[in-house]
Amino acid sequence: MSLKKSWVASANNPSHPFPLNNLPYGVFSTADSDPRCGVAIGDMILDLQAAEAEGLVQLNDEPLFEMPYWNEVMEEGPAVWAALRDRLTALLAEEAPEQAKTELLLVPIAEAEMHLPVAVSEYTDFYAGRHHATNVGTMFRGAENALPPNWLHIPIGYNGRASSVVVSGTDIRRPWGQLKGPNDDAPRWAPSARFDIELEMGAIVGTPSDGPITVQEADDHIFGYVLLNDWSARDIQAWEYQPLGPFQAKATATSISPWIVTKAALDPFRCDTPVRDVELLDHLKDCGPMLYDIDLEVTMAPKGKAASTIARTNYKEMYYSAAQQLAHHTTSGCPMTPGDLLGSGTISGPTKDSRGSLLELSWGGKEPLTLETGDERTFIADGDILTLKGAAMGNGYTIGFGDCTGTVLPALQDPFKR
Amino acid sequence: MSLKKSWVASANNPSHPFPLNNLPYGVFSTADSDPRCGVAIGDMILDLQAAEAEGLVQLNDEPLFEMPYWNEVMEEGPAVWAALRDRLTALLAEEAPEQAKTELLLVPIAEAEMHLPVAVSEYTDFYAGRHHATNVGTMFRGAENALPPNWLHIPIGYNGRASSVVVSGTDIRRPWGQLKGPNDDAPRWAPSARFDIELEMGAIVGTPSDGPITVQEADDHIFGYVLLNDWSARDIQAWEYQPLGPFQAKATATSISPWIVTKAALDPFRCDTPVRDVELLDHLKDCGPMLYDIDLEVTMAPKGKAASTIARTNYKEMYYSAAQQLAHHTTSGCPMTPGDLLGSGTISGPTKDSRGSLLELSWGGKEPLTLETGDERTFIADGDILTLKGAAMGNGYTIGFGDCTGTVLPALQDPFKR
Repeated sequence: MSLKKSWVASANNPSHPFPLNNLPYGVFSTADSDPRCGVAIGDMILDLQAAEAEGLVQLNDEPLFEMPYWNEVMEEGPAVWAALRDRLTALLAEEAPEQAKTELLLVPIAEAEMHLPVAVSEYTDFYAGRHHATNVGTMFRGAENALPPNWLHIPIGYNGRASSVVVSGTDIRRPWGQLKGPNDDAPRWAPSARFDIELEMGAIVGTPSDGPITVQEADDHIFGYVLLNDWSARDIQAWEYQPLGPFQAKATATSISPWIVTKAALDPFRCDTPVRDVELLDHLKDCGPMLYDIDLEVTMAPKGKAASTIARTNYKEMYYSAAQQLAHHTTSGCPMTPGDLLGSGTISGPTKDSRGSLLELSWGGKEPLTLETGDERTFIADGDILTLKGAAMGNGYTIGFGDCTGTVLPALQDPFKR
Repeated sequence: MSLKKSWVASANNPSHPFPLNNLPYGVFSTADSDPRCGVAIGDMILDLQAAEAEGLVQLNDEPLFEMPYWNEVMEEGPAVWAALRDRLTALLAEEAPEQAKTELLLVPIAEAEMHLPVAVSEYTDFYAGRHHATNVGTMFRGAENALPPNWLHIPIGYNGRASSVVVSGTDIRRPWGQLKGPNDDAPRWAPSARFDIELEMGAIVGTPSDGPITVQEADDHIFGYVLLNDWSARDIQAWEYQPLGPFQAKATATSISPWIVTKAALDPFRCDTPVRDVELLDHLKDCGPMLYDIDLEVTMAPKGKAASTIARTNYKEMYYSAAQQLAHHTTSGCPMTPGDLLGSGTISGPTKDSRGSLLELSWGGKEPLTLETGDERTFIADGDILTLKGAAMGNGYTIGFGDCTGTVLPALQDPFKR
């Protein structure tokens, strides 16, 4: 696979995140238009509501682009997904006969405001990165008991809050919560002092299911991927999470990147999960390469200052693929719906500079980071801008995700005085 | 408060669950009609879609009853909720001037099929019954460490799966799962052998919120209550739940009773939470009676046999009210939406025959129950019908919930052979 050329010139730059090979799906608005579906090509967005209205995209008897989210397309299933991608590729390729008509429906990305690309039906967060689980387990239980006994047998996950999912660029308000340190006599009500990120990929389920599905079926049901930052209040979590798991610690916000990168665009970057220490039970066994080679990066910028890279890692570091997570999610008969969002779990690599959370990077707050600006950090300070970046590097082209960013605002003065 | 008389004669029986004092809201269909909103009165349902079309109920410029769920009404807020109840009371009271017109829009409950009354946006399950938490904690950690350290300070909860919520009467398929007993060398893939119920109340959030709310505001946001059975696979749970909480063990199904009993109908039965061992932090403190005196019962019927009562308890046994749970749910800024369903947690009383789960009733499977039919049970056997019943007992009238029932079907032969 090499760069496919488009008549949108900016898309032909080998380092541009949105070449014709990518065609990521988002929802945008402009000063003149309400939110609607669009596809990115170079520095431009093709307005798909308009393209459908003009007859340039016509896949079904029913319109697909009347709603400001991608769920309607997702529900149509893989044959329509493939037909849509083929049609968009044909419209946007060099020497496309419809170039003149299509050109009229382009909007500069610079003039667009991005919205959530999908109506998130439910959100599940996994804990499926071995380096992350080992780091966290070592901090809390010691190196010998780092991985829980079930960890190598099941992709451990918990249900999160769909209502907390926001699009990149949304400001994040530092939460209050009930906190109790190990040396405190009693809990107190205070703003979180250990507010953190988690670098994750989000898999978006397109096809519904109503009973157990295989790993292969699960892979077929996934529509695409986004970057995902699972904002986490470590001090709230420490006090609340036993015995039933994280709850308010993870409910403030979950940011996702605005563009859904489709499985088709990522296909050349498929790779295998790591070698298994313990054989998985049949229903969770790998049946093909279902992880992806995607370079990931986290940057942190103190208010008004330049951004420093604080971590670099890769999605292929995960122990379980999103397909394995989705298959496990259905084992009990749990119905899955279009718009289900599955967070991969924090993606850390084996080295210190590849850790996907400040909890790990500062080793529980004991080893502050020094940013390039000279600022020291353990956890997030008010005003900090945290950004996730992701790209799969092809032969002469890039499949980029668009940034997943958020600025952390100070906690409310007192949330119960209004 | 005493019995309010209706021209629907069956509603005037002091033991009928649906007198004029109740007016519970559901969604029903008949052989001749698609699912639509209705209100129960005695043995009948008033078709509210038809009543609105006929001009008998007209609260807004916009129609409220075009959709087959109550979310549209819920979003309107407390003033519309009160106006609707007033109008329905006027239409159905003895000597109502519109009796003749209204009578034409009644459908016998016996001819109706019930559907989910609400589009469940998200589902949260709490663990807020002290007797239940003490029983389970004693079984797993011993009597001295029964309650986790945070339990008396926070209503502990976790996010469940909205997609798993089904209406009473829906058959429940025994799930498969990954199981590993304490003496097993490795996990195996098998049907759950410890499939259980949890007797709970469900609170339905009507008013959205987008930041922390007080306990009083939370009470104001609640639209009504249902009975809720949180079907639980104890063996799946035991292996999966550390460290992030229950996941597939709780995702097979959650049954709710078909009628939403409004907060207004329950108002005469408000009561206080129990005396506190430990003072709650200000934002969670009680500010009025927000539990309810509701008698609860669980019956179990082996296939083709009579039902035996296996537990009797009362909603007032809870340590935290739904209002406290909802307030806690918003502390981190978590947005709540119309259709959020909050399970109370299992409601057990202090005595052995008041325990709301088979786990407790059979003390972890060690003390089988003998049903009135002579059958012995630890957990659920295939074909068993489990039913929750609930009623608040007024002075000469009853506020009933309608049963919450489900038949457990045998596990699929092999869910991956299709």
